[in-house]
Parts: sequence; C-alpha cells; structure tokens
Amino acid sequence: MIYLDNAATTLVKPESVRKAVYNAINHMGNSSRGAYDGALDAARTIYNTRQKLADLFNFPRADHVVFTQNSTEALNIAIAGILEQGDHVITTDLEHNSVLRPLYHLEKEKGIEISFIEADTNGEINYNDFEKLIKPNTKAIISTHASNLTGKIVNIEKVGAITKKHNLIFVVDASQTAGAHNIDGEKSNIDILCFTGHKGLMGPTGTGGLCIKPGIEIKSFKFGGTGIKTYNKEQPTEYPVRLEAGTLNIHGIAGLSAAIDFLNETTIDKIREKEIYLAQKFYNGIKDVDGLTFYGPTNFNDKVAIVTLNIKDYDSGKVSDALSSEFDIATRAGAHCAPRLHQALNTVEQGAVRFSFAYFNDESDIETAIKAIKTIASY
Amino acid sequence: MIYLDNAATTLVKPESVRKAVYNAINHMGNSSRGAYDGALDAARTIYNTRQKLADLFNFPRADHVVFTQNSTEALNIAIAGILEQGDHVITTDLEHNSVLRPLYHLEKEKGIEISFIEADTNGEINYNDFEKLIKPNTKAIISTHASNLTGKIVNIEKVGAITKKHNLIFVVDASQTAGAHNIDGEKSNIDILCFTGHKGLMGPTGTGGLCIKPGIEIKSFKFGGTGIKTYNKEQPTEYPVRLEAGTLNIHGIAGLSAAIDFLNETTIDKIREKEIYLAQKFYNGIKDVDGLTFYGPTNFNDKVAIVTLNIKDYDSGKVSDALSSEFDIATRAGAHCAPRLHQALNTVEQGAVRFSFAYFNDESDIETAIKAIKTIASY
Repeated sequence: MIYLDNAATTLVKPESVRKAVYNAINHMGNSSRGAYDGALDAARTIYNTRQKLADLFNFPRADHVVFTQNSTEALNIAIAGILEQGDHVITTDLEHNSVLRPLYHLEKEKGIEISFIEADTNGEINYNDFEKLIKPNTKAIISTHASNLTGKIVNIEKVGAITKKHNLIFVVDASQTAGAHNIDGEKSNIDILCFTGHKGLMGPTGTGGLCIKPGIEIKSFKFGGTGIKTYNKEQPTEYPVRLEAGTLNIHGIAGLSAAIDFLNETTIDKIREKEIYLAQKFYNGIKDVDGLTFYGPTNFNDKVAIVTLNIKDYDSGKVSDALSSEFDIATRAGAHCAPRLHQALNTVEQGAVRFSFAYFNDESDIETAIKAIKTIASY
Repeated sequence: MIYLDNAATTLVKPESVRKAVYNAINHMGNSSRGAYDGALDAARTIYNTRQKLADLFNFPRADHVVFTQNSTEALNIAIAGILEQGDHVITTDLEHNSVLRPLYHLEKEKGIEISFIEADTNGEINYNDFEKLIKPNTKAIISTHASNLTGKIVNIEKVGAITKKHNLIFVVDASQTAGAHNIDGEKSNIDILCFTGHKGLMGPTGTGGLCIKPGIEIKSFKFGGTGIKTYNKEQPTEYPVRLEAGTLNIHGIAGLSAAIDFLNETTIDKIREKEIYLAQKFYNGIKDVDGLTFYGPTNFNDKVAIVTLNIKDYDSGKVSDALSSEFDIATRAGAHCAPRLHQALNTVEQGAVRFSFAYFNDESDIETAIKAIKTIASY
C-alpha cells in the first residue's frame, strides 16, 4: 500500500517508537502510584516527555504540559475550560469539528457568542478581519495552525500578536503541524497549544495534550484519582493533575517520547523539507492535467504537505476508492470534518480527495500517484 | 522485581498483547476515516473488540460499547451524562475518587444530592441500607464492583435487583474486577458498566470504556470529529460516536483485543482461581504474625486478590519502601484514592500497604513476600 493519508494518522512510525511501546508494556508500572522501580520508571518517562514537548514547542514549564487521549480531547478541555457564559470567541472557517462542535455546544448550553473569520473560495483568510471582530466581551481567539482539508498554514505569529495586543487567550490547534512544522509558543504568543501524538509527531495513537502558558487558568474537565491529595473533595488545582484524572497512557507516552527523540535527531526542518518536496513534486506532476480542481494555496511555503483536489465532477469517494482498488494508494475523500471550509470551497456535494505526505513516503510513491491521477482523469 | 501492585496496573501482560500493539503500529490507519485496507483493518479491529467486550460482560450490543482512555473517563462520562439538577444519587463509602470527585463536582455545580452507603470499620456494607436511602428524586445507584483498597466484592446482583425494582440507573465501576471476576451485565441488571483495559483485562494503558444497556441515555461529554455526519453542528446521537470524539487509541485497542482473547482462552474462572489461591496463600502465611492489622474480608470468596495490612504503627509508606528496597517487592502504600473508606477503616493517618496479585505471579513471589512481612514485623 502507498499510504498518502498521513493527515489522518502517520501510519508508519520510526521503528524506535514501536520498540519503545513494546518495551514499556511489561516494564512500566503506574506512575505516581507507587515508589518501586516500575512505577518510578513510568513517572520519569512521563515527566521527561512533558519536558521534551515543552522544549519542542518552546513552552516554559514541563508541569504545564498535560496529556490527553488526542487533540480533540485537548481542544474540548481548552474550550470548555476557558469560556464562560457571556464570553465571545473568534475562530475561523478553517476549523475542524474538534473546535467547532465544542464551541457550538457552549453556544447552546452557556450562550457564548462565536464569530468566524471567513475563508474565500480558495480557503484563504484575511488577517485584518481578526481585529474587526473583537468586542468588549471577546475572551479568546481559537485557530487551527493548518487546515486539515487544504493544508493552508495560518500565520499564528500574526494572530498571536493580535491576541497579545488585545489581551485575549490564544488557543492553537496544532493537529496538522505538531512535528511537521516548527512551532514556537513564545514567539507566537500561544496561550494554549493543543496537539495530537499520532500525526506529525509520529507517536502512537492515544496520545496528545495541551501546552499551557503559566498564568492561563483552565477549569478541570474530568475528575478522579491523581495519586496526590486523596482527601480533597475537589480535583487538585495544580497542573498537570488539574486536567489529568486516572491512569495515563503510559505505554503510548513511552512511544511518543521515542518519537520526539527521532524528530529532534532528524530535525523538523529536514522533515518539513522532505514532505514539502514530495507534495510539490506530486502537484507539479499533475497541475496541468485536464479536469483537475485544486483547493488551497499552490505556494507550498504556505502549506503543510497536503494536496487536495477533485477530478472533473467525479464523486470524491469514488476517486478515492479507485485509487485504493486500482493503484493501492490510500487517500481520504468525502467531507473532512471541516464543514465550514467545504462550504467556502463549494465542495459540500462532491467532497474532495486529500493526498497527505509524510517523512516515510518516497519519490516512487509520488510517481505512482501521478500516474494514477492521470489515468483516472482520462476516464 | 516481584510485582504485587496489580490493582494499580497489571504490569505483566500476555506476550500476545505486546505483539498485537507492536503490529498495529505501522499497520493500522485511522478507523472510519478512509476506505483503504489500513483504515478498514483498524475499523474491523475496533468493532471486533467492542463485540468481544459486549460478549465478555454479557451486554447485548457491540455498538453500545464505548472506548475511553481509562475507567476514570468512563465514570466521568457516565456520571455527568445521566445526572441533572435536582437528581439524587446513592453511592458507597467504598468508592474511588474517580466516582467521588465527579459526584462532588456535580453537587457543587448542579446541586445534585449524594447519599452514601456507609462502610463499617472492616469496610463492609449492609445491603439493606440501599432501599432505605431511595427517595422520589433518586436517579441512580453508583457502586464499585470491588474496593481497590480492601478487595471487598460488592454483590452487584443484589444491588442490581434493587435498581431494577425501583427503576433506577445502575452504574458499576468494574475497575478492579473486569477480567478478574465474572461480570454478567444482564443477570446483575447493570445499565452502565465502566471498565479499564490495563488492570484485570491485561490490556495496554490508554484503554477502557463503557458498556451501555440499550435505552440508557448518556449525554455527550466531548465533541468533535467522528468520521460521520460532518455537517451536523451537534455530536451525532447514535452510540458509540455520541460519546467518542477524535481518533481512538487504535494501537491500544488492538492490544486489548489480544488480551481478551487470552482471557477467553485461559478463562476468567481459572484466572480468578489462581489469583485467589495466591492471595489466600499469602494471607495464611502471615495471618498469625504478631503486630499485623488486616483490612476487609478474610473470606476470599468475597474479595478480589488484594491483601491490605499495616504492621504495628509503622507508616505504610515506610513499610512499602522497605519491601521495595530490601526485598525488591512492589506494593502500594499511603492513601489509595478511596478517602471515605480510609476514614471508615481508621487508616487516614497511617495509610495501608496493599498487596495485589495477578495471574502472572507465582508461588515463589508469595513465599518471598511472606518472609519479607515476617522480617519487617520483627523490627
């Protein structure tokens, strides 16, 4: 199988990640819940991984890195944890349902107000729109770092400058960029970075989290055991346990730790260079084929390694099925959990075929994909 | 290391579990988010594991098995999802903070009322107390299946008969029993069973969930992508996606699936028989040692494989440290996230040393532990 659905999950992980998970199972006890070697090993691995993530994203405190099951959970925690009745929030048309649905839920339950930065028919936004939407009750700006549908990168440094100027909380959804693109929490003034472990970070599923700037208060989302302060009726208020209840995914975190080591050794610059090279090569190979419509920027400096297209008026699901059955190429079609962007791109009916590239793809994958597109476009 | 902290996590898993996770990494795509082989493999594994769990616990529908990160998350979902302002709930002094803290939170936020079945100084409860506490606004009874502190098994068939008679929702916390003791959802009239994957089920961390009786309505807890109904503003209402947002821990679930196969091949009866044999052997070897205090039932038919004790007035943490440093035995000491039961047992100050046994322990582990206790008690 030629796997070009890396924006859903990077199927191929570094061998060290698999080995780390394999070794963690049967060696790691339950962190913070015992003082023997296996439990201490687990506690050390978890703390070290918090530190590696804080370093990777340039956040100051390891103990303000919180683990979750995935970025959706991280976003739910962030959104429910900062917004109160009467608050106004600004977000964008590029968002995934992991941002939209928690907001819609609070709109209904708590009467929060939501304003959207509109995307044009190519999925681009205008950064001047942010300040126009700010109101006295605006609490936060929540933005993806890159669209999962078009790959469009949002300039979070620009947005962060606006949130800083207006004293708003800046929440960034880094689901598509963590590990695939450099993120500097300090430079971009990010208050809460939500990430997943199983995409660009190349870690196992069941991992993800939040990096929180000190001073940002997020209410507890889940309540339960933490291994500390057993007799408190309330969840302890200190991070990370304020937002972590129950046993962490220690085996997965051991794998994530190995994944970050791989990223650091390889460097994100080199990973991004290769991924963008592959995406660009694919685009160049098919851009002049008759009957193709592309979505999002064509300048790959503004993108993560995603190429999204339709062929003529063919149903995107059928194109994706043909890619799989005839060419053994894995892509994703249909709606991509980004309803507002599909509306902006006018692809609600047709959906779109997304090709997403990762470090472990190679040139031959691209050559096969180019041939496949040319063949299907000739039908 | 002699690992006797299996109630925190079963450190040693069947080799097939480790292999299944290792194989899932680099082979399984993102379930419900693609139509190619890797994604379909993931979807099939996830569905099959739901079915295996439904069969294991005798619940009728695989699509009413919901995956979570751990049992704490499952309990948070169940508790927040069924209780409304004005509701009354009955629970027990045996509960873990994963039940107590979500309830205290709702008591504060929504004004729900909580009544407790009191435990006596040995951690026993009186089943006649349940009906005495039922009021017109009682909505649910929430009970652990076994205390994580003493190992005491609650007769859920008895409690389930009461919830059935009074038309209450019965929520069972099976953190200490799933995989270690037979659970029959139908026979015990369980409406919501909350379980974790990494203890008795012998699966990886980052797995757990709820089994839900059809007709029981639990509100959504997290909101986000599900791979279906992208254009709905609300979380889809059908189980399991009503309660599952974002990418599941596919790698962990693959391991859990292998773990359930191991349980089914070995049989839970045989596992329980061995675990109880080991716990009983340990107890018999030390019960007459001077200066020991035991907590909970001494009839092992009423227990999971836990022996909890103190030695003289020694701080439980120091005893546990000595067991680790002098005898390489891993146990857990201090407070066990069960604050009300420590109060009933009068062990708030001293804590207690918990020995918990699993299928992969052997007789020599027990012999060493007996010698260790005798030695420490002679200090």
